[in-house]
Formats: sequence, structure tokens, C-alpha cells
Amino acid sequence: MSVRFASRMEVMRASDIRELLKVTARPEVISFGGGLPAPESFPVAELKAAAAEVLDTKGAAALQYSTTEGHRGLREIIARRMNAALGTKVEASGILVTHGSQQALDLTGKVFLDEGDEVLCESPTYLAAINALLAFRPRFVEVPTDDEGMLPDELERRLDRCTRAKLVYVIPNFQNPSGRTWSLERRVALARTAARRGLVVIEDDPYGQLCYEGETPPALLALADGAPVVYLSTFSKVFCPGMRIGWLAAPPAIYEKYVLVKQGADLQTSTFSQALLHAYLERHDLDAAIRRIRALYGHRRDVMLRAMEREFPAGVTWTRPRGGLFLWVTLPEGLSARDVLPRCLERDVAFVPGGSCFPNGGHENTLRLNFSNQPDERIEEGIARMGAVLRQMTGGREGARPAAA
Amino acid sequence: MSVRFASRMEVMRASDIRELLKVTARPEVISFGGGLPAPESFPVAELKAAAAEVLDTKGAAALQYSTTEGHRGLREIIARRMNAALGTKVEASGILVTHGSQQALDLTGKVFLDEGDEVLCESPTYLAAINALLAFRPRFVEVPTDDEGMLPDELERRLDRCTRAKLVYVIPNFQNPSGRTWSLERRVALARTAARRGLVVIEDDPYGQLCYEGETPPALLALADGAPVVYLSTFSKVFCPGMRIGWLAAPPAIYEKYVLVKQGADLQTSTFSQALLHAYLERHDLDAAIRRIRALYGHRRDVMLRAMEREFPAGVTWTRPRGGLFLWVTLPEGLSARDVLPRCLERDVAFVPGGSCFPNGGHENTLRLNFSNQPDERIEEGIARMGAVLRQMTGGREGARPAAA
Repeated sequence: MSVRFASRMEVMRASDIRELLKVTARPEVISFGGGLPAPESFPVAELKAAAAEVLDTKGAAALQYSTTEGHRGLREIIARRMNAALGTKVEASGILVTHGSQQALDLTGKVFLDEGDEVLCESPTYLAAINALLAFRPRFVEVPTDDEGMLPDELERRLDRCTRAKLVYVIPNFQNPSGRTWSLERRVALARTAARRGLVVIEDDPYGQLCYEGETPPALLALADGAPVVYLSTFSKVFCPGMRIGWLAAPPAIYEKYVLVKQGADLQTSTFSQALLHAYLERHDLDAAIRRIRALYGHRRDVMLRAMEREFPAGVTWTRPRGGLFLWVTLPEGLSARDVLPRCLERDVAFVPGGSCFPNGGHENTLRLNFSNQPDERIEEGIARMGAVLRQMTGGREGARPAAA
Repeated sequence: MSVRFASRMEVMRASDIRELLKVTARPEVISFGGGLPAPESFPVAELKAAAAEVLDTKGAAALQYSTTEGHRGLREIIARRMNAALGTKVEASGILVTHGSQQALDLTGKVFLDEGDEVLCESPTYLAAINALLAFRPRFVEVPTDDEGMLPDELERRLDRCTRAKLVYVIPNFQNPSGRTWSLERRVALARTAARRGLVVIEDDPYGQLCYEGETPPALLALADGAPVVYLSTFSKVFCPGMRIGWLAAPPAIYEKYVLVKQGADLQTSTFSQALLHAYLERHDLDAAIRRIRALYGHRRDVMLRAMEREFPAGVTWTRPRGGLFLWVTLPEGLSARDVLPRCLERDVAFVPGGSCFPNGGHENTLRLNFSNQPDERIEEGIARMGAVLRQMTGGREGARPAAA
């Protein structure tokens, strides 16, 4: 049988990360691949109590259809938390609860993108955002990025050559995959450029609260000077990802379009999951939980950085993120992370090759490491195994690691 | 600020039903609008036990990311149940768990439709399917339908005039909105036409198990004679809708495309919701629950039909569905259900105007009534109020109902 698919299917490809999750389901694999939170941080007992409370007090209403916009009480808590943490002035009526933050990316493509529209993004950028938007056939314009964020001159130069620039998609805090955080100056510059050029800013902020050093500058949403900003975030990294609760905040004229496309996409986010999260947030101090997560992940980041110092050969460099879940490794020119991966998988260590994070390809000598998901000894063991592979592949002597490892 | 949206946003419109849900949130409103299951059928106590069991035995794993395809044990149960009920031979590996059946419709549009592709559908058809597919800008070709299903000659005639026919979308059992069920002959004819013409059949079957009289003929998926069939269904009508668990079954070459677009759309369906449903299905007899639901809904259908006989004036006709959630009312030519609705809402009764169920418009003298969601006395009271409005608008005398009502 010959089936004709939509032409978009020619460009869609399986996410390296999701495919990796399959391999890494084997418990012996030390995975630095997915952006998995530490399961020991999930509020298992609290959720058991919340489930009992919700079913006892709300009963069947917690299992019935509900509105597309989402649980009213949950949206109020989200707005309040955003305004307290980010200096924004959003209202509950501007919050749409999504089936994870990934859905907000898909809805973004649907609301804004015609085939051939231009999306400006950091280089590298979030792999799953590329995959979500790719379904709507945009042209990705990668903007060079340094430790402070997107380079404003480079952004202007590329915009001068664009004919259908529509969105600029950025992750200003502890970026995925690079771990970098934008400075205040770069945020202000982007907001001004977007306002002047009539671009919509998609500010993706799943990691903003996972800050281990210093403070993060204000959100673009708080700085935006007339530029429309759609702000995306999620409870996946500070509560749990398996419940799939994210949200977006948007100005009214944009918000109503998102509600329309969410209706068509899945009617609504789970009534029960939203009620559970709401009950949890009413009874527990999420900020205290976030402080515990910060301490845990900050420590694991340090463990990984120290192990890399010991184990990785000369010529390999990496970022030192002040928060988030990821750090970014650059291998010597000519060494492809896609060649390193199978050698590491043989030793039961996984990571994400960085090339997938560049929508227009190239940069195969890069890779992303997650430091949040594994306990200390497995981080050290995994980095030691990777170090051995890298030393071998860069010509260093295998097994030359200090006894301290 | 002037924001440029995707051109598809010009054709997207708010679902009448979803907007209705807002009005009908007022408890005094008797709503025959949404396709809401009866909340008294939801397994509240069983879910409380399942939540405790899942969190005690699986712990954090039930809250972590998981695979796009879905919970393996749940997919096995789904495949087993399908094969037992439908005479199909699907395997668990061909089942994709979706965030409600609505998501399967959205993914269908993404996998198959380029702008201008033709989708053949029943006339009328499911409102939310129109909205889901509309985002991909197809041309809907409505095929005349009688009490036995789509008219085969009419389908052939329309196909002769199509240049880009790609999908045929049908709800063969207790159709939404008409309540009609396709005969075996019509199913066989559709399967043959689809195979000969190279069409993909989208068989939407959310209500197949809600049969109150007789039996339903085999699924198109079981009859398909070389035509690729994508089968969609859901737990929303036999378990609860607020958890948002649906699924699709597709042949391997099509299945992998759905997995790809599901990755981009939302990564995966809720790990926790799937684990809860799986635990529930392992411990409880869903078929016994379905038998109770059938008895309840069959009774409510009868209550509504009897009330309509008493209350509705001459010139108004309706279907007598053998299952499902809906019946379909035709008003006298020239009387628009959109004019009837505000008069009914004034009396706190809601329904869905039928015009929204025709993708190319027209047929405003039709409406859809849901009979599953309200208890007997509210069905009788709501139909009495509607009857009064209809008698008034068709020139009959208001308040002429028998004392028995």
C-alpha cells in the first residue's frame, strides 16, 4: 500500500533524545542524555495525599471535561508566582495551561507560522523546539550567541536579510543545550529590536527557578518595550514531568488564538492532573521544594564539572552553567559526537550529540550533558567512562585518570 | 501592536460546544450541549485506590518522563480489548496512547494534510474533528448520509470530481452528531472504495461500546480490504474524560509518522494518568462498568425520546439512535437553531446548533441533543422548556404540554 503523507513529513525526524530514552531505559545505562529531573525530588507522598483529597472533596468533577483555558485556581497561583518571581504583571486570565511546555511550542507554530516564515533562534537551540516548529515548515535563522546571549549586531544583520521574520525564539535562563544565561543588556537589546522590527518574542523559561549561583536578570516579558512576548514555562522541572503540566502567558489578542488552537489540538489539559497540582500547591511550599532541588542539582553540577576536569582530555572545552540542567561540551574540531556516542553506549553511558541542536546542521563536534538525573557516584563513573573514550579518540592514553576518581 | 498570525488563523473559529461549556457551568442550566458522560458513572473510589497503589508501588517512576508511544501494559490491554470486541488483529506495538481522542485528530491532520488536500466526511460530521483538521487547511467534501451511513454512489460521484482526495473521515457507530450507525453493507462499500481509490480511512469510534440495542457491525479496521485504516478511540466515555486518555491504532508505516508528530506535539501522554488507568484496568472489570453505563444511558435516551414525543411540535423530527450520546433534531425548514438557542438559554436550557457540524455551512435548521449527562427529571424539564420554545416559534401554543410532563 502506498500512502501519501503531508509534505511536512519529509522534514520531520525522530528526536535523538526521545530515541535515547529507549536505550537508557536499561537500568545499567548511565544517562546524561534526557533532561530528566531527579526522581528523588518528586513529591510522591504529597501527591498520594493530594489524590485522596481531590477525589474526596471534588469527586467526579475532577474527572469530568473542563475548560480549554485551564483550572482557574491553578492559573491564579501561576500568575501570582510569575509576578512575584519575574516582576511581570500578568493576570490569571492571560494564563493557558498546556499539556507540558512542549505543547506550547506546538501551539506556537500553529498560531504564527506559515510555510517559509522565518524563526530567529539561538545557535544552538532546544532540539524539541526545532522539532515542534518544523511541522509548520519555517526557515530557521540561527543567530550567533556567546556567554551573554544572542549577539545584537548579528541579530540585526540577519534581520536585514530576512523577508518574512515572524518569531524570535529564545531561552534566556540556563539555556538548553548550552547552559548559558543572557545578561540584562542583551535582554534589553532583544526587546528593543523585536519591538522595532515587529517580531513576536517566544520566551521559553523552563529552568529559570533552577538557579545555583547569583540571580537571573528580569524576564523579557517584564522588559518588553511594546514587543509582544509569549512566555512559556512548566512544572516539569520543579514538581514532576510525568504529569505534563506547563503553561503560557500571552497578551489578550494572542492569548485567544492559542485557546482556539488548543481546542482543536486536545480540547483541554487533564482536569485531574490540574486539580492534583492545585491541591499540592495549596498545601505545600513549592519554593521550599525548589530550594531543595537547587541544592541537589547545584551539587551534582559541581560533581560533574570536577569529574570533567579530571577526566576529559586537553582540547575538550565546556560551559559552566549557573543553573538549569545541562552543560555543553565542545570537542576538538573534526571529532564528531555522533562517532563518540556509540563508543560510549558500548560502555553504558549516554548523552545527546550537539549537532541536533542546530536547525541548519553542522557543529557535530558538540554534545550536551545533563547533570540533574544521576547520583554522584554514577556521574563520576559515567564521566570517567566518557573521559576514557575521549582520551582514546583524541589520541590521549586510555585509563590515565588520577587515582582520586 | 499589530501581530501577524499564520494564515490558518483566518479560518479557525471557537467551538460552539466549548463556548457552551462556559455558560453551562452554571448549575441551574440544563445542558444537552456537550458530550458529557454522566459523572455518577466515574470510578471515583476506584481511582483513589489506584492512585495510592501506583504511588506506593511505582513511586517516582510514575511521575517521570516516559516514552512517546505510551505505557506498554496499557497498550497491551487496549490491543486485547480491541481484538476481542472488534474482530481486529492489532498488536500493542501498533497502539499509540494520545492525550484524548481529540489529539489523535490533530495528529491526523499533521501527518496527512497539506493545504488544499481533500477530506471526505459524513454530512453532518463531528464538530471538533472539523476544527482539528481545519488547522491544516483541507477542503472538506461532505458526502450525503442516510440512516445506513454514507451513500456509496454519492461518495463515488464526489471522488470523481476530487483531485486531491486523501482521507475519508467517518464515525460508523452512533455517529456524532446524528446518532446513526452504519450498516455492514455500507462499511464494506467504503472499505472497497477506499482501497481502490488509495484513500486512508480515519475510523473514529469513541462510542462503539455504548450500544443499547442490537449489535454493531464489524469495525472498518476489521473489514478493510487493503485500505489503510487509522482507528481512533478513547476512554473518555467509558472511564472518564478528565484524564484525557485516548488512543489510535495504525499500520506500521503510518504508526511511525504519528509517533514522530506526537513527539513534537507534546512528547508523550501523562505517565501518571496512564499508570492510573492501567492499575484500574488490572483490578476492575471495565466491561461490567460499561454494562452499567449502557443501562443508564439507554434509559436516559428513552426518557428523552418519550419527552420529545410529548413536547415537540409537529414538523420537528429526530433520530432514534441505538447507542452513543447524541440524537439529532431537524426543525422545520427556515427555522434556525441559532435563533432557538438564545430563547432556550433564557430558560436555562442549552444544546448545540447543528450548522456547526457541516464544514461547508448550511443546515441551520438542525441541532444536537446529548442525553447522557442529565438525570431523568432534568431531561424531562429541559425538553419541556425546549418544547415550549419550539411550539412558540413554530406557531404552536405555548404551555400546551400534557399534565403528565
